[in-house]
Order: sequence, then C-alpha cells, then structure tokens
Amino acid sequence: MKLRVVLVEPMYEGNVGSIARAMKNFGFYELVMVNPCAIEDFGLAMASHAKDLIENARTVSCLEEALRGVGLVVGSSGVCVLNTDEHLRVPSLAPEELANRLQGTSGEVALLLGREDNGLNRDELKICDMIVTVPTSQDYSIMNISHAAAVIFHALSQVEWGEIALARREDQDLLYEHFRSALIEGSYPPHKLEKTMLMLRRIFGRSCLTDREVQTLHGVIKSLRWCPEDRSENIEKI
Amino acid sequence: MKLRVVLVEPMYEGNVGSIARAMKNFGFYELVMVNPCAIEDFGLAMASHAKDLIENARTVSCLEEALRGVGLVVGSSGVCVLNTDEHLRVPSLAPEELANRLQGTSGEVALLLGREDNGLNRDELKICDMIVTVPTSQDYSIMNISHAAAVIFHALSQVEWGEIALARREDQDLLYEHFRSALIEGSYPPHKLEKTMLMLRRIFGRSCLTDREVQTLHGVIKSLRWCPEDRSENIEKI
Repeated sequence: MKLRVVLVEPMYEGNVGSIARAMKNFGFYELVMVNPCAIEDFGLAMASHAKDLIENARTVSCLEEALRGVGLVVGSSGVCVLNTDEHLRVPSLAPEELANRLQGTSGEVALLLGREDNGLNRDELKICDMIVTVPTSQDYSIMNISHAAAVIFHALSQVEWGEIALARREDQDLLYEHFRSALIEGSYPPHKLEKTMLMLRRIFGRSCLTDREVQTLHGVIKSLRWCPEDRSENIEKI
Repeated sequence: MKLRVVLVEPMYEGNVGSIARAMKNFGFYELVMVNPCAIEDFGLAMASHAKDLIENARTVSCLEEALRGVGLVVGSSGVCVLNTDEHLRVPSLAPEELANRLQGTSGEVALLLGREDNGLNRDELKICDMIVTVPTSQDYSIMNISHAAAVIFHALSQVEWGEIALARREDQDLLYEHFRSALIEGSYPPHKLEKTMLMLRRIFGRSCLTDREVQTLHGVIKSLRWCPEDRSENIEKI
C-alpha cells in the first residue's frame, strides 16, 4: 500500500523523529513535510533506525504540493479541534474505522498530521476527505502527536490492500468543479453553495470514491443538466 | 476497569513521562515502577498534564511486590524477545486480541513493560499469564516503548468491563501449587515437571480464569488424586 505521511508545519524535531520511527515500525516510508522545523541531532536520534526516512523526506512549502498525486486525504485531529467549528463537525473516524473503509482499495492515501499546538487549521481540514481521531479520555484528551500517529499507523498496517482503484485527488477535484458549475447553472442559492460543496466533499470523501464511480457521477451530473425543466416538473408531481 | 501499568526497571525518564501521558490519555491512572531511573525535569515535562500519575506512582524494589493483588499479568514483548527462547514462544496476542479476551471481565490486570534495551527477562516473562506484542514491520520491529504502550492502551481503552470476576493472582498461584503437588505425588517425570507447569500457566493464563473456575479446578485435581489406581485402569481400558 501507499501511505504518504504529511507533517504540516511540525514544530519539534523530536516529534518528527519519533513519527519517522513509528512509520518504519509499521512499514510506511513516504514522508513529506510542509514548512518543517529544522531536523538536527535530537530529531535524528529520536528517529533511531529510521533516519533514512528523514533523509529521504520531501520538504515542500505548501500543502497542495504535498498532496499532488494522492487519492484520498485523511486529516488527523484531536477532539478539540473539531469542536471549534460547528461546520467541520463531521463524524470523525476511529483508526480502526478508517482502516475498515480502506480494506480492499489501492491507490495512495495521504495522512495529514498537524502542528503540535493547534493541529490542522480550518482550511486544511476542509480539504480532507475524512477525519481520523484517536478516541481518548475526556480527562486528558491531548495526545503527543507521535503517539497518536503510532496508534493510527498500527490500525492502517492491518489494512489488506486490494484492487479497488481509488480515484486520484485531481480527478475528484474535477468532479467537484463539475458539481459546482452545475449547481450555479441550476440557480442553486449562492449563500448555500459553499456549505453544500463542503458537504458533498464530506459525503463522497467518506465513501472513498473509485475511478469508475467518479466517471459515473460525471455522467449523472451531465444527464441532470440536460433537462432542468423536465426535472423540476417531475419533482412537482411527486 | 483497573489496569495497573508496571514499568520494570525503566531506563529513561523521558519514556516514563511519555508513558504516563499516554496512560492518562486513555483513562488509566495506576502506575507502579520497579527500580526505576530517576524521574526529573525532562520526565515530568514529557508527562505534560499527567505529572500527577508520576507523583502518585508507587515505586517498589521487586516485581512480586508490584503485582500484589492483581488478577491477570500481561507481559508486553517485542518479537525479538520471544525468539530468544524456544520455550517461551507462546503465541503472543495482538493488542486487539488481548482486548477481546478481557471483554466482560472485572478485576485488576497488570500490564508489564520492560527495559528499553532488553525488555522483560526470561523469568519475568515466565510469570506472565499472557504476552501482548504490537505487530510491526520486519524491516524495523523495535518500537519506542511509549509508542508500543500507547497502541496497547488504545486497544485496552475499548474493553467493556463487566461482571466476570477474574481470579486473583494469589489464588491462581495456589491452584498451580495444587497441580504441582498432585503431579509430584502422581510420579510425573521430574524432568518434565517445570515445562509442564509453565505450559499449564500459559493455558490457564490465556483463558483468563475466573474465581469460580479456579475453585472448580481445585475440585478436579482433588478428585483425580483420590483414585489414581482406578484412573489408570480406566485409561488402559480406553
């Protein structure tokens, strides 16, 4: 399987090293860092026998670049982050639930791990297809990021990857643009448009769209666009 | 539920702090340390908001003392440790399998975490009823101890504890002594005795004996001891 671990602006080299070690412990190798802190002696020491992952890591300056070529984007988030914005309160998945969703699929999945203090910001969470949260005690819910990562890696290491090709991110984006233009053309209330687009992304994100499904959905939108009048008449009859 | 985390001769205060934090993240509070390293500023910093667990931890000088009062003893072990001694190659459980075994039980479980370099030694592993191992990549199987602990805590945090009372350790020991004396009385080959005793411990350990079952097994041994002659005759007839 291909898992790309994307660290978004990690602040402490020790955590980066610990995450690299945990990745290799569970058989994951591809590390991308967006604007990371400097990784020096302490970070490499924490990586232990996974120094090679850090040496081979790709460093980029924006998240978009980090995600190029992946199919599914999974954001990790502590409970608190989700509670700060009502609209992002998607049901986050436990690591095992995420693993279940991925059973039998192929293609590349990106797992986003945010800053140690504030996690992923609202815009970063918005582009995630799914959110994974390690369920913790209410008494003290803030885990060290490398420990949360280890729990998620452990769950993902048990996925049996198969033949079901997940749609590439770029192809999904084209689908959402198709939806958006169709809705605009169909006079969808402009003040609802963005929230609806986010909801569509969440719905389809949770369902791990395949290549074939993306093509079928394009066909569905196309056919709906052909006869808006007929459709509204039909709806009135129901 | 009652989980007692027992750190056996931990060597690095940073790991102790990290383990305490992960414990509290998953709702576990009871920490016992056998001959630990000194826990100073760095260890407390790594514990973050779980400093209270370290302050309230019990420090003891031998494992026996650490285990007083618990029912089940679970040792954690990396794959390598198990491979060093053929006779200890019990099937170790994945964290989720361990959690499944504990569903519906009550009573106190001790989770033993060994030294960072050599884990638990042979004698320590022998007194464990079960062994739990986080399955890792063959490429790099040695996890940081606090990360392995976090994965195990996560699995155990999902156990729904119930009413089934696990037998206390002391009562189990009396049962094994009963077995041993019965076997000696029954002229069991002395060179096989210790291995058989270890095997009995493994078998019953895996089955998470309840109070009631321990009492029943005492009765079984007793009735077998009453009529060794009759029994051997019966066996010959079979």
